[in-house]
Amino acid sequence: MQNVVKIGVAGLGTVGAGTVKLLSEHRDNLTDRSGSPMIVTAVSARDRTRDRGFSTDGLTWYEDARDMAQDANVDVIVETIGGSDGIAYELCKTALEAGKHVVTANKALIALHGVELARIADANNVTIAYEAAVAGGVPVIKALREGLSGNVVSRVTGILNGTCNYILTTMREQGRDFADVLAEAQKLGYAEADPSFDVDGIDAAHKLAILTSLAFGVEVDFDAIAVEGIRSVSALDIQMAEELGYRIKLLGIAKQTPEGIEQRVSPVLVDRNTQISKVEGVFNAVALEGDYVGPVILQGRGAGERPTASAVVADLVDIAAGRKTPVFGVAAERLKKNVRAPIEKHIGAYYLRLMVWDRPGVMAEVTAALARNGVSMASMIQQGRAETEGGVVPVVFITHETNEGSMLEALATISAFESNSQPPVLMRIENFAS
Amino acid sequence: MQNVVKIGVAGLGTVGAGTVKLLSEHRDNLTDRSGSPMIVTAVSARDRTRDRGFSTDGLTWYEDARDMAQDANVDVIVETIGGSDGIAYELCKTALEAGKHVVTANKALIALHGVELARIADANNVTIAYEAAVAGGVPVIKALREGLSGNVVSRVTGILNGTCNYILTTMREQGRDFADVLAEAQKLGYAEADPSFDVDGIDAAHKLAILTSLAFGVEVDFDAIAVEGIRSVSALDIQMAEELGYRIKLLGIAKQTPEGIEQRVSPVLVDRNTQISKVEGVFNAVALEGDYVGPVILQGRGAGERPTASAVVADLVDIAAGRKTPVFGVAAERLKKNVRAPIEKHIGAYYLRLMVWDRPGVMAEVTAALARNGVSMASMIQQGRAETEGGVVPVVFITHETNEGSMLEALATISAFESNSQPPVLMRIENFAS
Repeated sequence: MQNVVKIGVAGLGTVGAGTVKLLSEHRDNLTDRSGSPMIVTAVSARDRTRDRGFSTDGLTWYEDARDMAQDANVDVIVETIGGSDGIAYELCKTALEAGKHVVTANKALIALHGVELARIADANNVTIAYEAAVAGGVPVIKALREGLSGNVVSRVTGILNGTCNYILTTMREQGRDFADVLAEAQKLGYAEADPSFDVDGIDAAHKLAILTSLAFGVEVDFDAIAVEGIRSVSALDIQMAEELGYRIKLLGIAKQTPEGIEQRVSPVLVDRNTQISKVEGVFNAVALEGDYVGPVILQGRGAGERPTASAVVADLVDIAAGRKTPVFGVAAERLKKNVRAPIEKHIGAYYLRLMVWDRPGVMAEVTAALARNGVSMASMIQQGRAETEGGVVPVVFITHETNEGSMLEALATISAFESNSQPPVLMRIENFAS
Repeated sequence: MQNVVKIGVAGLGTVGAGTVKLLSEHRDNLTDRSGSPMIVTAVSARDRTRDRGFSTDGLTWYEDARDMAQDANVDVIVETIGGSDGIAYELCKTALEAGKHVVTANKALIALHGVELARIADANNVTIAYEAAVAGGVPVIKALREGLSGNVVSRVTGILNGTCNYILTTMREQGRDFADVLAEAQKLGYAEADPSFDVDGIDAAHKLAILTSLAFGVEVDFDAIAVEGIRSVSALDIQMAEELGYRIKLLGIAKQTPEGIEQRVSPVLVDRNTQISKVEGVFNAVALEGDYVGPVILQGRGAGERPTASAVVADLVDIAAGRKTPVFGVAAERLKKNVRAPIEKHIGAYYLRLMVWDRPGVMAEVTAALARNGVSMASMIQQGRAETEGGVVPVVFITHETNEGSMLEALATISAFESNSQPPVLMRIENFAS
């Protein structure tokens, strides 16, 4: 006799509804793969009357999702309500305490409460699984937690937000500015009405926090991430970067350094010949670097009803098949404290773009300011000359590797020059081996 | 008290030795990840005196690896002897029968005896794991078997042989011919003294056979694969393909068709804007397409001591942690028979390159032959004109989608034309969405 695994789905938006549909559509296949039939026994959503493309007849309906945690006819909760706190948090916590497994797509929840939830899961011999929280259906959590378990990871890098990647790709391809492309993306449904979670880098940072914990065996530490979004990226900088052989991507990066773990989300320049620079549009990609495996890249669709449902169901199959992996790869009590590397200690090359009044002596004062702060220059381009003497021209400096503290001091000096017609733009350059 | 997992390593070549080193180097990390210390208790290799960079003191040494299957002090056998039959096969079979798990990097063994071994594993409640058999340390087996378990897969495609990809990349970048680049690759150690397993596509076909079984839930069926290697790829064809916007890659492809599953390994043309076309040099990549997840690509180093050891150890951690997955994703008895789609029924576009005497009427007779067989032409290029009237020029035809049977009939007719100065070259074109 096979055990039936009973599932309660909290939230019936795109992800919740997609999960219910997938479970029904591929029922026989899934039973073959998990060894146990998986059936939905309970659901919860705000509006009971809405047509979601499937029948809720015979399912227990909860007005308040939190009550599902006590349902004896539910073995696993699928949480797709969203939000780092409130109902989602309370439901997941009480479900784990009640000895139920939880599967969630909620990156904010895991990024902010992951360690607490992992401890509760361990104490109750259940799991909280979250493959869907990063890169949609692309199995990056599994790859990092299980596939690369033999490695000491040195760096994790990711294009983690499809909205930002779509906007940057479109800006580059069409030479358009951020605000313009964002408005279009909102119209097309690729960006939210309030886009700040995406374009300010918060969503990518939630995902990065999770990857960092898995990669380095440390407690999730969202607050340690230096976060910067893409609002200040201009069509001009994208074009200048291209001319210099770079592409601008919003990357989440976590790196082991002698100072600790450096975590940051920001627009960075990457060599146009690297694989990650070629991941365009709404696609996501995660690049992992292990001491044995070398570089590994995974890519695919990072969002959407069907890719996300794919990830949720993969977690459900693991649970139904009895495959247990500690929430962050090692038992919660074995996770190390995260030692933060201060971002001022970051070592790397930089892209510095000025918009200056075109007159003698400007270059000399900038290069002198860089030199005084120990920043050495690798290359410089000035695009054209101003139409009239004293007009405005963009000038770009690419530096050799330096530390961010020195670079910021040089920037402060340079920003004060009267030759600037607008504030300078500074971006990090990130290197990849392939 | 933790259970200690005792490992016997059969074969101490690069993979075996790399595994022993990794297990020792990352011992504490691995114990955290698996929950159980993993120790090597026994080894077997031909030459006991060779220095492999680690001490074999205290380990049981077997002259004949097969005896290891009966060692009560071994829980898991790591088989790195190689070869589809002989000692490797006997060792794996008897170890599984003796209730020991097996981890192997042996693609030939799994491709040819996978179903039998999976049945024995199931019957003895153990597993035979083979992440290292495909794409080195890149966790493609895990991604397909567990990460995409919620999907019906429509196609699996892969750059599965690093030697071939290196040769094709070098041929293109340097405009050199196959024999020349092969000789250099042999000198550099990127190709074997007898390169036929690699360059004739057999190694890629072994890997494809495994991926096909996992993707479609069917019995491994190596003999069903239409295999063609890269010996006949010329620098000229690579160059002509580039001019038309394509890159030539040796791909393994398994596809669900109305006729059954089509499996083939051959040089194919892929659009130069697709991600898979940009995987160069010794890198491997596998592209998976699921009905829910959409396209997913994984890439990384497909061979070498350290990447392969990474995969072997990932399998060992899964076993030590008690995570069980059926050998091919579903129980061996639930695997379907493979229904072979005959390659003549393949539907796709083609690249046809002729080398013809440059004289009036040649184009007309070729296009007429294509048309008579129902093959319609999408484009045609003739590169330059012959230096002298009646000289030889390459001419390329790109067809619309047609079936391979018709294309081969057209080819037979065209090959008989006296206008050919050498036999025509025909290659399939493979489409990717991104």
